Amino acid sequence: MFAEILENVRKTCPLIHNITNYVTVNDCANIVLACGASPIMADDENEVEEITSICSGLNINLGTLNSRTIASMKIAGKKANALGHPVVLDPVGAGASRLRTETAYQLLEEVQFSVIRGNISEIKTLASGNGTTKGVDADAADKATEENLGQVTAFAKAFAKKNKAVAAITGAIDLVTDGERAFCIYNGHPMMSSITGTGCQLSAMTAAFVAANPDHPLEAAAAAVCAMGLAGEIAHKRLTPMDGNATYRNYMIDAIYHLSPEELEKGAKYEVR
Amino acid sequence: MFAEILENVRKTCPLIHNITNYVTVNDCANIVLACGASPIMADDENEVEEITSICSGLNINLGTLNSRTIASMKIAGKKANALGHPVVLDPVGAGASRLRTETAYQLLEEVQFSVIRGNISEIKTLASGNGTTKGVDADAADKATEENLGQVTAFAKAFAKKNKAVAAITGAIDLVTDGERAFCIYNGHPMMSSITGTGCQLSAMTAAFVAANPDHPLEAAAAAVCAMGLAGEIAHKRLTPMDGNATYRNYMIDAIYHLSPEELEKGAKYEVR
Amino acid sequence: MFAEILENVRKTCPLIHNITNYVTVNDCANIVLACGASPIMADDENEVEEITSICSGLNINLGTLNSRTIASMKIAGKKANALGHPVVLDPVGAGASRLRTETAYQLLEEVQFSVIRGNISEIKTLASGNGTTKGVDADAADKATEENLGQVTAFAKAFAKKNKAVAAITGAIDLVTDGERAFCIYNGHPMMSSITGTGCQLSAMTAAFVAANPDHPLEAAAAAVCAMGLAGEIAHKRLTPMDGNATYRNYMIDAIYHLSPEELEKGAKYEVR
Repeated sequence: MFAEILENVRKTCPLIHNITNYVTVNDCANIVLACGASPIMADDENEVEEITSICSGLNINLGTLNSRTIASMKIAGKKANALGHPVVLDPVGAGASRLRTETAYQLLEEVQFSVIRGNISEIKTLASGNGTTKGVDADAADKATEENLGQVTAFAKAFAKKNKAVAAITGAIDLVTDGERAFCIYNGHPMMSSITGTGCQLSAMTAAFVAANPDHPLEAAAAAVCAMGLAGEIAHKRLTPMDGNATYRNYMIDAIYHLSPEELEKGAKYEVR
Repeated sequence: MFAEILENVRKTCPLIHNITNYVTVNDCANIVLACGASPIMADDENEVEEITSICSGLNINLGTLNSRTIASMKIAGKKANALGHPVVLDPVGAGASRLRTETAYQLLEEVQFSVIRGNISEIKTLASGNGTTKGVDADAADKATEENLGQVTAFAKAFAKKNKAVAAITGAIDLVTDGERAFCIYNGHPMMSSITGTGCQLSAMTAAFVAANPDHPLEAAAAAVCAMGLAGEIAHKRLTPMDGNATYRNYMIDAIYHLSPEELEKGAKYEVR
Repeated sequence: MFAEILENVRKTCPLIHNITNYVTVNDCANIVLACGASPIMADDENEVEEITSICSGLNINLGTLNSRTIASMKIAGKKANALGHPVVLDPVGAGASRLRTETAYQLLEEVQFSVIRGNISEIKTLASGNGTTKGVDADAADKATEENLGQVTAFAKAFAKKNKAVAAITGAIDLVTDGERAFCIYNGHPMMSSITGTGCQLSAMTAAFVAANPDHPLEAAAAAVCAMGLAGEIAHKRLTPMDGNATYRNYMIDAIYHLSPEELEKGAKYEVR
């Protein structure tokens, strides 16, 4: 089914509205193009309703948020909800500051998200207000591993149910669940954490995948996570001895550009729990 | 004559003030450096007059605009006019929201532009207020093709005349006209649309070309458009099977870095109408 | 000793808070990751105190500053001072506008910096209010050369002493001094000036080096400057004939990613005056 999901992105070329941070925004735009969709970035409160109206999906990312953009996130999110567009939340750094945590809480209250994608620390913060977040990276203690997978899956399912959203918790093992079924995804490469913004890019691409497959948000989000992980694997194989994280970042986007539906279907490594 | 135009950029190394979006700003800076000029980005209303005064050209780009930066665009544009510096307008997304369309109208009223560069949808919006813009990309229906070239050229000439500016309408065929003569430019590669910001980069580079050739804005803008298209061609030839849009983006800037005046002169494919 | 300094970065993986411009911010994040540290970008006044509190170093960069971010720089700088965290100042474009110059003065008054890194024009502006700055690049007339090295070293030492900070003045020859000893550094490659943001990247990396070596700010800053110069040399050797400044920029970050403590120790070219 993942092949069909990616095919739908390439066929429908959905336009995705991104309200996102200025650190990784260029990579987000290029990966959205790479997967076959089209990005537009707009964060002024006087235009976000109109912009999101001409799009078919919205991606809200809390990195480098400020009072001006927070207002725009809420306005755009509500508009997208009214139009029935899928909305993705990337709660970058939730737990690292009250501003980010509270903004995430407010967004969860005011906007119905289709997918919430973050690392385990961010999602735990959203779930309980008690996560400990080291900056924008996940705490090692919280990461999903073979040992605690059952526990983390149960947590993710409960979080998804409570928020009536697909939860995508990425780490060494990625978990994507709608509260009923959980995809435990084994794609990816450790070097992905040496690049800034692989999470942001994944969230933007997830919005594209879900927008092109509105009736299958769980599978679309899982397909996006597999695609990103596969890109990390494919890109890593291309590296020559002098290539580091900058070349790796380019190769990952290149890999998404060339990823065929068949390769995604075959390369996706997951089990459903 | 294009050879001389590029030589002048490399000789005079003009400093270009950019008020531009945060999506593609880094690529804009690097392509300005690649062509031999020097970029400075500044968007606070308390400094844009001074910054534009030490520069020899100004590039105003409406992507990710907000009320704060709109004010700065107007202040900087008027100051550049007062100093006789060329000013380029890139109306990114005009037609996609009232904020962008109205800001573009206001800028056209308050600032005299040397060059207005956009896709056909954006320029039609500026011309008539009736363009239909799909996000920041051009509508297929409006694009210049062999069939409608005469019609689009006439439209472009009228638009240029009305605005006393060079109009540069980029697409599969690019049109650059001052209202009298029109360069129909056949350089470029379809893959350029798979990268975010080739238009933004072209506008920034156009400001550099015009600043270094202030008496020949038409030819300078046409040379910049040819240079960008040539870079797209040269970069595409370098691609190996696993290279995608991220590598392509780097190779385009690399191609501008190495583009010699002679290569530009020889490689430029255009007719004058 | 430079080997140990880089080892400490890789061992302690310090989290670095960056309040920086939107032009080069992505490269800053990726080079901080490349050297072994971890970046977080946050510029809203309602979160910068908390964000800087969970970090071990702060990097303040004046590029694309605005009234909102200036307030945040001051708040974050004071908090970092209160916590004893090292703070780096990169006065991008000081001298180019009153806003930048005065903001730099205010920051020097209100915040105690560990390292101030800029080009000679920017540092002269900070020292005297009489520098002439051509945009964000240094004036040729001011640059440290073999001929005026004694004079520039004396200036740098006086500036460092007055500000009780390490001064890092980068150019063809780089000078790093705490007012007593001065490292005259001969690493680097002229092509580094064809990329936007090598200075910004160096400042971000310097914050990481100093944060991981808090008792040796002079040596840590000198090591960062040598590392950046070495990366410029290593990256240049990799270039093939069609590679330009975009590929060079990636290769520089790649070089930092692979730079071993031993290579840094061996490759650092400097004399102490």
